[in-house]
Amino acid sequence: MVYPKIPLAQTVVQLCKAKNIKHIIISPGSRNAPLTIGFTNDEFFSCYSIVDERAAAFFALGIAQQLHEPTAVVCTSGSALLNYYPAVAEAFYSDIPLVVLSADRPKHLIGIGDGQTINQKNVYDNHILYSANLKLDLKDENNIPGNEDIPILKNLEDKFERLLGLQKDIQTNNEEEINIAINFAVQKKGPVHINIPFDEPLYEMVEKLSVNPKVIEASSKASKIEDYMLQSCLEDWNSATKKMILVGVNPPNDIEEKWLEEIAQDDSVIVLTETTSNLHHSSFFPSIDQLIAPLNSIEQKQLQPEILVTFGGLIVSKKIKQFLRKYKPKHHWHIDPKTANDTFFCLENHIEMTPNTFFSLFLQKVTHFVKSNYRDTWTAVKQTRIKKHKEYLEAIPFSDFTVFNEVLKDIPRNYILQVSNSSAIRYTQLFSLSKTLEVYCNRGTSGIDGSTSTAVGCAVVSKKPTVLITGDLSFLYDSNALWNNYIPKNFRIIVVNNTGGGIFRILPGHKNTENFDTYFETNHKLTAEHLCKMYGFSYQKASNIESLQKELNTFYKVGKQPKLLEIFTPKQINDEVLLNYFEFIK
Amino acid sequence: MVYPKIPLAQTVVQLCKAKNIKHIIISPGSRNAPLTIGFTNDEFFSCYSIVDERAAAFFALGIAQQLHEPTAVVCTSGSALLNYYPAVAEAFYSDIPLVVLSADRPKHLIGIGDGQTINQKNVYDNHILYSANLKLDLKDENNIPGNEDIPILKNLEDKFERLLGLQKDIQTNNEEEINIAINFAVQKKGPVHINIPFDEPLYEMVEKLSVNPKVIEASSKASKIEDYMLQSCLEDWNSATKKMILVGVNPPNDIEEKWLEEIAQDDSVIVLTETTSNLHHSSFFPSIDQLIAPLNSIEQKQLQPEILVTFGGLIVSKKIKQFLRKYKPKHHWHIDPKTANDTFFCLENHIEMTPNTFFSLFLQKVTHFVKSNYRDTWTAVKQTRIKKHKEYLEAIPFSDFTVFNEVLKDIPRNYILQVSNSSAIRYTQLFSLSKTLEVYCNRGTSGIDGSTSTAVGCAVVSKKPTVLITGDLSFLYDSNALWNNYIPKNFRIIVVNNTGGGIFRILPGHKNTENFDTYFETNHKLTAEHLCKMYGFSYQKASNIESLQKELNTFYKVGKQPKLLEIFTPKQINDEVLLNYFEFIK
Repeated sequence: MVYPKIPLAQTVVQLCKAKNIKHIIISPGSRNAPLTIGFTNDEFFSCYSIVDERAAAFFALGIAQQLHEPTAVVCTSGSALLNYYPAVAEAFYSDIPLVVLSADRPKHLIGIGDGQTINQKNVYDNHILYSANLKLDLKDENNIPGNEDIPILKNLEDKFERLLGLQKDIQTNNEEEINIAINFAVQKKGPVHINIPFDEPLYEMVEKLSVNPKVIEASSKASKIEDYMLQSCLEDWNSATKKMILVGVNPPNDIEEKWLEEIAQDDSVIVLTETTSNLHHSSFFPSIDQLIAPLNSIEQKQLQPEILVTFGGLIVSKKIKQFLRKYKPKHHWHIDPKTANDTFFCLENHIEMTPNTFFSLFLQKVTHFVKSNYRDTWTAVKQTRIKKHKEYLEAIPFSDFTVFNEVLKDIPRNYILQVSNSSAIRYTQLFSLSKTLEVYCNRGTSGIDGSTSTAVGCAVVSKKPTVLITGDLSFLYDSNALWNNYIPKNFRIIVVNNTGGGIFRILPGHKNTENFDTYFETNHKLTAEHLCKMYGFSYQKASNIESLQKELNTFYKVGKQPKLLEIFTPKQINDEVLLNYFEFIK
Repeated sequence: MVYPKIPLAQTVVQLCKAKNIKHIIISPGSRNAPLTIGFTNDEFFSCYSIVDERAAAFFALGIAQQLHEPTAVVCTSGSALLNYYPAVAEAFYSDIPLVVLSADRPKHLIGIGDGQTINQKNVYDNHILYSANLKLDLKDENNIPGNEDIPILKNLEDKFERLLGLQKDIQTNNEEEINIAINFAVQKKGPVHINIPFDEPLYEMVEKLSVNPKVIEASSKASKIEDYMLQSCLEDWNSATKKMILVGVNPPNDIEEKWLEEIAQDDSVIVLTETTSNLHHSSFFPSIDQLIAPLNSIEQKQLQPEILVTFGGLIVSKKIKQFLRKYKPKHHWHIDPKTANDTFFCLENHIEMTPNTFFSLFLQKVTHFVKSNYRDTWTAVKQTRIKKHKEYLEAIPFSDFTVFNEVLKDIPRNYILQVSNSSAIRYTQLFSLSKTLEVYCNRGTSGIDGSTSTAVGCAVVSKKPTVLITGDLSFLYDSNALWNNYIPKNFRIIVVNNTGGGIFRILPGHKNTENFDTYFETNHKLTAEHLCKMYGFSYQKASNIESLQKELNTFYKVGKQPKLLEIFTPKQINDEVLLNYFEFIK
C-alpha cells in the first residue's frame, strides 16, 4: 500500500474513508497530486477522472443524489474550483452532500503573483454549509523550509508558531476542521468546502501512514416537536375542512406508504404532487399546472385551502405559487429537519423533523376525519382536466407537447428519469407518469448548466437504468458531460430539439423579430449527431410521430453503446400548442 | 426607438452608453429581458448572443483585452452568473475591465424557495473590484405592488420607504452605484459586478426614456513619485553594476520605443522578456527558461542582480522565480499604477505609475552608464543557448518540441497569437517569435478553462487575424467557445494533441502506471474533427513533420470557414525531448 508523503494529504484521505465517502471525482492537476495519490491507491475508494470541473461537480452531485452519501470532488489550485460553483449552489439548495476538496498553495505563496493562484478561502461563502480552511502541514520535514527559505516566512506569527512547536496544534486543528466539514455535509445535507494547502514536493510517496486522525462522530439531534405546537396543529387540523398537502422535490420511497394511505382516506385533504415528488396514490393530484392554470378567480377563491402543509424541496409549478400567494391559507406548516422557505408569505410553523416522524406523531392523534367535500370538488376538476387533456392530444399536430406525451408513456418500467431545466421539466409535469419511475431534476437553482452531468453521475452508480430527457440548449450547454469513460451502455438521452430556447416563446415576449430569435430564443442549427460520434453514443433521430414511435421501439433495447435519440420539433407551433392547451382544458 | 419600460433597466443601459461600453454579450434568460431589450434595440451597442455563460464571459474578456475598454456580460438570475466566475477571476488578476450585469429577483423573492434564485449579492467577493447591489426600482407604476400584494413587503422598512416617497433616493443611489462600479472597472482595470433586481412584467417596452441618469466622471489620480524615492532609486541605480528588468504580461505597443532604446544602451542592464511581454529588442533576453534553466548555482550566484525592476502582469517562467527567490536582488522595484506583487519576497518600492511615466522621469536623470560587463556575460550565455538550441532541433524526432518550432516560425506576420495554458505557453516561451506578432495568454489565473473563448472574442474585434495555439485538454474543456455565430473566417486554431495532459509527464510524477495515465495525464482518444464538423470549421490534421509542413502551407490561406489544424504528437517521447533539452543546452 502506498500513501502520499504529506501528512495532511493522508489525514484528508483517511478521514474521508472513516466518514465513508466512497466516490471521488478527480480533475487533473499538480497541486492536488498528494490527494490523487492518496485516493487512487486505496481500493476503498471508487475514483473517477473528469477534466472539466463544472461537469465533474455535477457528476458528483448525481452520485450523491442517488446514494444519499457525501461525494467528493478533488481539484488543483486556481480557477479550477470556481468551475465547481454552479454545482455547489445546486447542492446547497437541493440539500445534497457534495464535498469540495480543493488543493491550494501555501499561504505565503498566495497574493504574490504566483501562477495558478487565486483567493480560494471561503470562495463559496454565499452557498456553502461550512468552509474549512486548513493550514499548511509543517510536520513533514520536507515541508519545513530550509535556512535559505526562512525569509519567505515573512509573517512573524509563522516563525513563532514554528519555534513554539505548534505543528501539533495545526494538525489537531486540521483534523477537527475536516471532521466538522464532513459532519455538516452529512447532517445538514449540503455542500461543504475543504481548502487544503500543499507545499512541494507534491509527488512523493511512503509505504506507511504517519497519521492517525481522530474521527469525530456526527452528533444527531433528536428531532422533536413542542407539545403546544403539536396540540395547536391538531386543533386547527381537526376543525379545517379544506386542507392541502403540497410536496416538492422528494426522493423516491422516502415517505412510508401507511401515512400516504391514511392521508388518502381523509376527504378534507388533497395532496398535490409534482413529478419530482416521487409520490403516487390514485386519490392524489399530480399535474398541478394542468389542474390549476385554467381556474378562474372565483374557482380559485372556492378552492383556497385553510391549511397548507408542505414538505420536500423546491416546487416547480409557478401556477401553484401564484395561486397560494393570492389565496393564502390561514396556516402554512413546513415539515423539514433543516429549513423552511416562506414560499407563500404565510409560513406559520417550521416543523423541524422528517415527514415520517411528524406523520407518526401527528396522524395517530387525528381521531376523526372532518366531514368535507373539498377533495371531491378537486377530484371533479381533475377528471375534467384528464378528459380534456386526452381530447386535446388527439386534436393537435406533432409538437413538443405530443413528443413529451409519447416519450413519457414509453419509458420502460423501473427506470430512473432525469429531466433537465426548464421546458423539459415543465412539460413533464403535464403528464402522468408510471409510478415505477423515479424522477429527478436539478431544481435547487433550476439551472440549465449541469443536467446531463448529473444524469451521467446518477447512471454510473444507480442499479436501475437511467434516461435523461433534455432540451437542446441544456444538452449543448453541458456537452462536456459526455467527456468521461464511465457512461454505462444502458444510459439513454432524449434531446427534444426545438432549435433554441423554446421556452421563451411561451413567455409574453416579442416573437418573430430578429432580436427575439437571436437573444431570447437563441436560434441555432446544431444537432447532437456529431457529439454522439465523438463520444461513442449511438444516434437515432425523429421528426414526426411515426418516426418517433419507430425509433422508440428499439431505443431502450440493449446496445453496444449508450444511446441518444434526438427529436426535432417545429418551433413555430410549439408555443401555440402549449398556450392553447391551457385554454382548451378549462 | 424602443426602450424597456422598467426605469432601472433604462438607467443601466443609458449609463453603459454614457461610459462607452460598446460590446454586450448576452446569455438567454427571462429575468434579464429588460436589459436585453434595452441593449439590442440601441444601435450604439454591438450585441452578441452566447448561451454558455462560462464561454460568454471569456469571450467578453477577449474583447476587453484587445480594446482596453470595459465590456459587459448580461445574464439571468440563478446559477447563470456563477458560470462567469472563472472569467471574473481571470479578469481580476489580469487587470481586464469586465462588467458583469446580472439580473436578479426582487429582494422579497430571494431565499423563500422561488425558482432560479440564489444569493447573488457580493457573490464574487474574493475577486472583484466593486460589487454594486442595486435596489428594486419602485418608480414605475407597474412595479408598485398592488393592494393584494402589499403583504409580501414583509419588511417594515420597505413599507416605510415607500410611504416616505423614497423611490427617488433609491434611483439616485442606483445611479451612483452603477457609476462607481463602471468607473472602478475603467480606472482600476478589472472586473466589477452590478446586480440588478427586476420585478415582473419584464417584457414591456416604451417609446420614450423615463430616466436621465447622472453621469459621474471617473476621476483620474495624477501619478507621481515622491522625490526622496526617485532620488534613492537613482542613487542605487547609478552605483549598481548588475541590474535586471523583468517584464511580465504586457500589451503590445505599450512601452515607448525611445525608453527601450535608451535602456538597451546600458551595459549594466539586462532586460528579460517573455513572449507575453510583447517587447522586442536585439539586446534583450527572451526565452527566459532556455537562458536560466541550465545554470548551475555558481553561475546563478555570479549573475545575481543587485537591482530588479519589474513591470507588467504575471510572470510565466517558474525558473526565473526560483532563481530570483534564491538569489534575491538587494532592491526590487515594481512599476504599476495599481498593485505590486512581492513575487520574490524582497519588494522594496511600489512605484505607482505607468512604466512610461516612470521612465520619462527616471531615465532623464540617469546621467551616466556605469561601467559593467553584466550584459555581456548574459549575452555570452544567450549565444551559447541559441547555438545549442539549433543543434538540438536538428537532432530530435517529431514531438511537441519540434511542432512548436515549426508552428511558431510559420505564423504569418502581423497576426495576433493567442496561447492556451499550460504546456502551450511554456513551449512557446522557448522559441523566439517574430516581433510583428502580438501575444496573449490568460495568465491571471493560468486556467485551462477559457483560452479558446478568449481567442474567439479577440478575433471578433481585432483588425488583425488571430491564431490560437492550444493543447488538447484546454481545447476540449472550452469546446463551447465554438458555439456562437461570430467567429470570423480568418480565425485559426492549432491543437497540439498529445492525447492528454502532456505537461504532467514533465513533472516528477509516476509515469506509465494506470493511475498516472488516468488521473494525471487523463488519456483520451478524442480529436477535434467532430467538433469542427459540428461548428463549421474546416479541419486539417498532421502527425509528422512532412504532413505538418504541408498542411501549414495552406492553413493561413483565405477560406470559406475558420480553420483548425490538429497535430498529433507522440506522448511517449514528448517529455524526454523536453527534459533532455535543458540538459543539452548547458
